[in-house]
Amino acid sequence: MQIGLLGYGTVGKAFHALSKEQPALTVKTLLTRRPRGTGCRETDSFADIVNDPNIDLVVELIGGIHPAYEYISAALRAKKHVVTANKALICAYYPELVQLAQENGVCLRCTAAAGGGIPWLSSLSRVARMDRITAVEGILNGTTNYILSEMTARNAAYGELLAEAQKLGYAEADPTDDVEGYDARRKLVLSANLAFSALLREQDIPCIGISRMTVADIAWARERGLVWKLIARAERRGDAVSAFVCPTLFPASTPESQTNGSANLVSLYAERIGKQSFSGAGAGGWPTASNVLADCLEIADSSRSFYSDRPAAPLPIDNHGEVKTWLFRSYGRYAVRQETAADAFEAYAAVSEIDSGALLAHLPWGML
Amino acid sequence: MQIGLLGYGTVGKAFHALSKEQPALTVKTLLTRRPRGTGCRETDSFADIVNDPNIDLVVELIGGIHPAYEYISAALRAKKHVVTANKALICAYYPELVQLAQENGVCLRCTAAAGGGIPWLSSLSRVARMDRITAVEGILNGTTNYILSEMTARNAAYGELLAEAQKLGYAEADPTDDVEGYDARRKLVLSANLAFSALLREQDIPCIGISRMTVADIAWARERGLVWKLIARAERRGDAVSAFVCPTLFPASTPESQTNGSANLVSLYAERIGKQSFSGAGAGGWPTASNVLADCLEIADSSRSFYSDRPAAPLPIDNHGEVKTWLFRSYGRYAVRQETAADAFEAYAAVSEIDSGALLAHLPWGML
Repeated sequence: MQIGLLGYGTVGKAFHALSKEQPALTVKTLLTRRPRGTGCRETDSFADIVNDPNIDLVVELIGGIHPAYEYISAALRAKKHVVTANKALICAYYPELVQLAQENGVCLRCTAAAGGGIPWLSSLSRVARMDRITAVEGILNGTTNYILSEMTARNAAYGELLAEAQKLGYAEADPTDDVEGYDARRKLVLSANLAFSALLREQDIPCIGISRMTVADIAWARERGLVWKLIARAERRGDAVSAFVCPTLFPASTPESQTNGSANLVSLYAERIGKQSFSGAGAGGWPTASNVLADCLEIADSSRSFYSDRPAAPLPIDNHGEVKTWLFRSYGRYAVRQETAADAFEAYAAVSEIDSGALLAHLPWGML
Repeated sequence: MQIGLLGYGTVGKAFHALSKEQPALTVKTLLTRRPRGTGCRETDSFADIVNDPNIDLVVELIGGIHPAYEYISAALRAKKHVVTANKALICAYYPELVQLAQENGVCLRCTAAAGGGIPWLSSLSRVARMDRITAVEGILNGTTNYILSEMTARNAAYGELLAEAQKLGYAEADPTDDVEGYDARRKLVLSANLAFSALLREQDIPCIGISRMTVADIAWARERGLVWKLIARAERRGDAVSAFVCPTLFPASTPESQTNGSANLVSLYAERIGKQSFSGAGAGGWPTASNVLADCLEIADSSRSFYSDRPAAPLPIDNHGEVKTWLFRSYGRYAVRQETAADAFEAYAAVSEIDSGALLAHLPWGML
């Protein structure tokens, strides 16, 4: 399958590298303003891609609404499949683009637009085909989660951490979309649309971000064993949807509270299969590009005979003594944290030496 | 796509019900020893299925090694696709069955064989195609997790809870496969084989179950803020694999510790995309059947144009006042748990009345 790639930023570059390992995919032409030395044909004219009858699939990674919308529309009309990571665009033109893909009998996918590298939208659509999804909910914005995590961990002020996140590249120069919850809301729209076969519009969904949270708010929660997380949530209610983005309190021991930094955690609730949760890196070049690639592979796939058609090898099992020491390490590691200093030292010394005999005496039950 | 269904137990029945909602799938013939009144053709002879040129796909849900192996082999040789939930069989004849599928140019899938309704094997194979997976690890057996969870929660003895699990249908009359870790080990073999393109054999993998755990072991862990979980783990190490099944200690606040009852939680670690975790119901008719159905749909799919081709509706947003009360409820709910009785009463009263004015005064920051 021959690909026209639009854009060569962090995700575009990672996608290009990943695609080289896939026999089924070739990036034939790259749309770029300046030479990139990729080895494939490079052009600054989209016409070179849309008019090329040998290009089957357009991967859009330039971001922004225009000209991405015009490019994607033209590609679909030219009966080329389209894969994009552009949540703002898909969200803004959801009904138009889905219809255009259907009318032209080609595929449109945007799994990387929500959840970074997590197979969230693809899993969601898989469940939606065979069960009634009642709600979707989760931590879908890495920037706000990073800021909230650090506010919680370090007792630092919002403004200070935002500046730091900007310096580290976790937040944009204009952070409005992230910190006011608009980015999470777009991902919620895509999730809810797939979950409920709906056509929600961003502007209809109430959205409360984190820009007004203070050190005192964080401290108030901490005193009560609670943690603030920015949650995007949509629930089917008859012929309507309850949907919003809002900071929410979780007990410190819940999976949500322990989702730190730029990680995402997102769950679906379905009538027959119950709750399923997915977590992983919600942003970054490799994770995002991996979902773009997965979409391309899904489109390119004629049925593989097994999950993978790669040859498999009878790898030997070699535990390097690990099974015998796994229990010991498990015990020792937490003993170090939990016991008195004397106990900890003893346990730690034993673990470090991997002295089975000595540690065996410490084990809670005599399995080995 | 016409299906020959083998078996009509809990999963078979659920699968049959789910398949009726799928226009692309029809169960044409059911293999069953006694009449089931399903409306499709019912037979007690597999020949009626394997010799029927109109059946494209055989779904094997009878379990056990024989005659399931002979049936599946014959179906693949007759160039019919095969979907199964039979981990014991796939594990025992992995290389033979994968090769048979490849030689005959048909599909073999077994996503329901590990993780019940969680899209684990399918997600794993998806990541394995584009990244180097370094480890797979998780809670993959619901029976042992139920027993360990209840031992932890109720301070009850292993034997007592095993008997209870048997009564509730969570454990077999002969519980050996579950409690000695063999079931988890089979799921580990399938996971590791897909993750590492390997051909591991169950009998090579060390396996420690939970049958010798005592109330004292659980108490010992609890005193230290720890929880026992039966973990199956495989890690790629050069040209070998470190793999085992073993009870493991986790701090009480980790996602593993909070995976209770018959739930599963399983993670992959990959070089470029990092860690991804998946959780949900690890067993049960509907969840397991949903993964069987997903495999069938994947095989039946010619590319859909969007994730779903179902028509979408512009559902209205109706939050039933929930956004305004979400923060209040969030606050109130945990206040009830965390505060003194007097505080709790006050907060609870305010929440129950959904008296915005009164609660607003309690809120940590004045957002609304």
